[in-house]
Amino acid sequence: MRITVNRKAHFNAAHRLFRSDWSDEKNLAVFGKCSNPHYHGHNYELIVSVTGEIDPETGFVMDMKVLKGLIKTEIEDTFDHKNLNEEVLEFKKLNPTAENISVVIWNKLRSKINKTLDLSVTLYETPRNFVSYSGE
Amino acid sequence: MRITVNRKAHFNAAHRLFRSDWSDEKNLAVFGKCSNPHYHGHNYELIVSVTGEIDPETGFVMDMKVLKGLIKTEIEDTFDHKNLNEEVLEFKKLNPTAENISVVIWNKLRSKINKTLDLSVTLYETPRNFVSYSGE
Amino acid sequence: MRITVNRKAHFNAAHRLFRSDWSDEKNLAVFGKCSNPHYHGHNYELIVSVTGEIDPETGFVMDMKVLKGLIKTEIEDTFDHKNLNEEVLEFKKLNPTAENISVVIWNKLRSKINKTLDLSVTLYETPRNFVSYSGE
Amino acid sequence: MRITVNRKAHFNAAHRLFRSDWSDEKNLAVFGKCSNPHYHGHNYELIVSVTGEIDPETGFVMDMKVLKGLIKTEIEDTFDHKNLNEEVLEFKKLNPTAENISVVIWNKLRSKINKTLDLSVTLYETPRNFVSYSGE
Amino acid sequence: MRITVNRKAHFNAAHRLFRSDWSDEKNLAVFGKCSNPHYHGHNYELIVSVTGEIDPETGFVMDMKVLKGLIKTEIEDTFDHKNLNEEVLEFKKLNPTAENISVVIWNKLRSKINKTLDLSVTLYETPRNFVSYSGE
Amino acid sequence: MRITVNRKAHFNAAHRLFRSDWSDEKNLAVFGKCSNPHYHGHNYELIVSVTGEIDPETGFVMDMKVLKGLIKTEIEDTFDHKNLNEEVLEFKKLNPTAENISVVIWNKLRSKINKTLDLSVTLYETPRNFVSYSGE
Repeated sequence: MRITVNRKAHFNAAHRLFRSDWSDEKNLAVFGKCSNPHYHGHNYELIVSVTGEIDPETGFVMDMKVLKGLIKTEIEDTFDHKNLNEEVLEFKKLNPTAENISVVIWNKLRSKINKTLDLSVTLYETPRNFVSYSGE
Repeated sequence: MRITVNRKAHFNAAHRLFRSDWSDEKNLAVFGKCSNPHYHGHNYELIVSVTGEIDPETGFVMDMKVLKGLIKTEIEDTFDHKNLNEEVLEFKKLNPTAENISVVIWNKLRSKINKTLDLSVTLYETPRNFVSYSGE
Repeated sequence: MRITVNRKAHFNAAHRLFRSDWSDEKNLAVFGKCSNPHYHGHNYELIVSVTGEIDPETGFVMDMKVLKGLIKTEIEDTFDHKNLNEEVLEFKKLNPTAENISVVIWNKLRSKINKTLDLSVTLYETPRNFVSYSGE
Repeated sequence: MRITVNRKAHFNAAHRLFRSDWSDEKNLAVFGKCSNPHYHGHNYELIVSVTGEIDPETGFVMDMKVLKGLIKTEIEDTFDHKNLNEEVLEFKKLNPTAENISVVIWNKLRSKINKTLDLSVTLYETPRNFVSYSGE
Repeated sequence: MRITVNRKAHFNAAHRLFRSDWSDEKNLAVFGKCSNPHYHGHNYELIVSVTGEIDPETGFVMDMKVLKGLIKTEIEDTFDHKNLNEEVLEFKKLNPTAENISVVIWNKLRSKINKTLDLSVTLYETPRNFVSYSGE
Repeated sequence: MRITVNRKAHFNAAHRLFRSDWSDEKNLAVFGKCSNPHYHGHNYELIVSVTGEIDPETGFVMDMKVLKGLIKTEIEDTFDHKNLNEEVLEFKKLNPTAENISVVIWNKLRSKINKTLDLSVTLYETPRNFVSYSGE
């Protein structure tokens, strides 16, 4: 009997879509206004989903207080009010598309969550654009 | 060709996270402020999802008017404006975590919906905490 | 490593639930007020979801600008501010239930999206009623 | 000490922007695709706001159960799943713009609510277009 | 040149509509299922709105970090995960309707915010019921 | 008989709270993480509200197609996917707080909208922080 618990969080960040091995012209041709060298930004909304058995002792799949804390220390403290390209190590050489940000978030959380639990993340870049990744 | 139809509903209820076989101190240590003996409460938002073939006669997987009625009689009439711990039979001995409430709701609906149809439920305890269960 | 990208769109349309081979009386008996011969309407909200590998060149599963354009030319231009029964070819003989509209939308998009990518659509008829279809 | 209580409701309807004393060509020139002779439709979301003193007996400005019932009998029963142009008396000769619908709703409710209470209505035609009217 | 800044917060609480000087029967007759002696509860969403001149030094009407902190210490710490009737002093003898809760919140915040600034509060008891109070 | 019509729009931008006549240290002391020299960003949601008489000819206070176009040319084209501090003229010497951005938007729109109509703007910096300005 497996069930999924979900926790919502958010962070505000600047970014640009950009490959440092391409010229600004090529970045502009491929990424359009998202490659603006002066950056733009988003209110990212994040849903972290953890799937597993209900612990009969507590009635929890995972203590939400623990999950909330983990999202804060692993993701919000590193990403919130930051420039993703300039200030987040993982994006020094990786283009911070919503897809790549999701994979980075998933990897950071995966290492901290019990291996008996499945993990997936959904990241809203805007209310109209969002991505989901479950490590498959 | 399988398709999923979803119907949203809601109920407002009081609860506390609590095991009657534990002391209030142990309940507090494990469940924090959620174990407040005076209760707290939520606007629960429920999504019921039913998956199956489209009936070529009607173009429906399941008549939404029927599903809406079923959610009313099986769930809203029993849970809305109630104290889950005190007034809902299933939680007399079961801790009303979002996980356990979802399983109870799923079981109540499962027995009333045609076995050719798959069922899953998503329960928002708050806009930031929610769970999904599909009986697997 | 597969990831899903999602794009939200919307269109406003009139429809009625109706089979032309049934009498208005039978339509009313089965479909209730949704069969009103004078039509009613909805703000349909559509989520198109595309699943595939991240292109290491761009960091995209699919360029969202392309997906947004495809939704506009294939769906919005055909459905927005239209009477689905009267003006959308596919519903001349098909009852425009949310289920059937989803299948039509999925088919129209499927033929325009690279076969290496999976496709699913979610269609909100109202904030309380929605359907999902992934071609399975 | 005046306070405002607000109640949300909704109805789904078809309409077209149209003046019967104009040609379809002129309607099209002025109202664009909103004048489609085959109609289109919306999920209208309505907020009814009532302002007055708190009754010290009950702690209510107005009993929400009463207000909810009034919205049902006066507005939902008349507008829901209807074609506003064809089936709602007030729009036989009045163009059903969001502005005019709001005034009609306000007038219908105003006559049923105690004159010591102020009334305003907000009508969402779509999540992106809405109007407010308070009878001033 | 006056401008309004708004901050959203939330708390989850149990309550019942109830006058201790009335019998349970009379409470039931007037307040319906909201008077359930076992309580029910809500996810209250609160918007605090402060109006004043923009400080030319900072570009702020009021520092949002300060307002957020004030809402936490004055409102969330007192109301969140509480039984309003049993555990919040102001409701020992005052019926915790949304109207009365709003007035209590307004009074608690008013004494902590600079008198040159206007204050109003909006309290969502559910997504469908909400009240606004500005001390007038 | 005055009525208000409202139109929602959005733009994504980077900014930092910053006075160029202060040191980075002083900016940090006053504005906290919002003064990050590498910038952060937001999905700004904008509501533009126009109040006036209903034109009896059209049933409109103002043609929403015109208002939508005006918001696009005056606001979205200038602000969307931009760094407000670096690329928007008005913020070369003005701190881009939500308050100041609202005043700038209001001024830009005010000059383009008929003087018989009142104008106000509401700007969401995040779903939890927003400001309103009506030129008073």
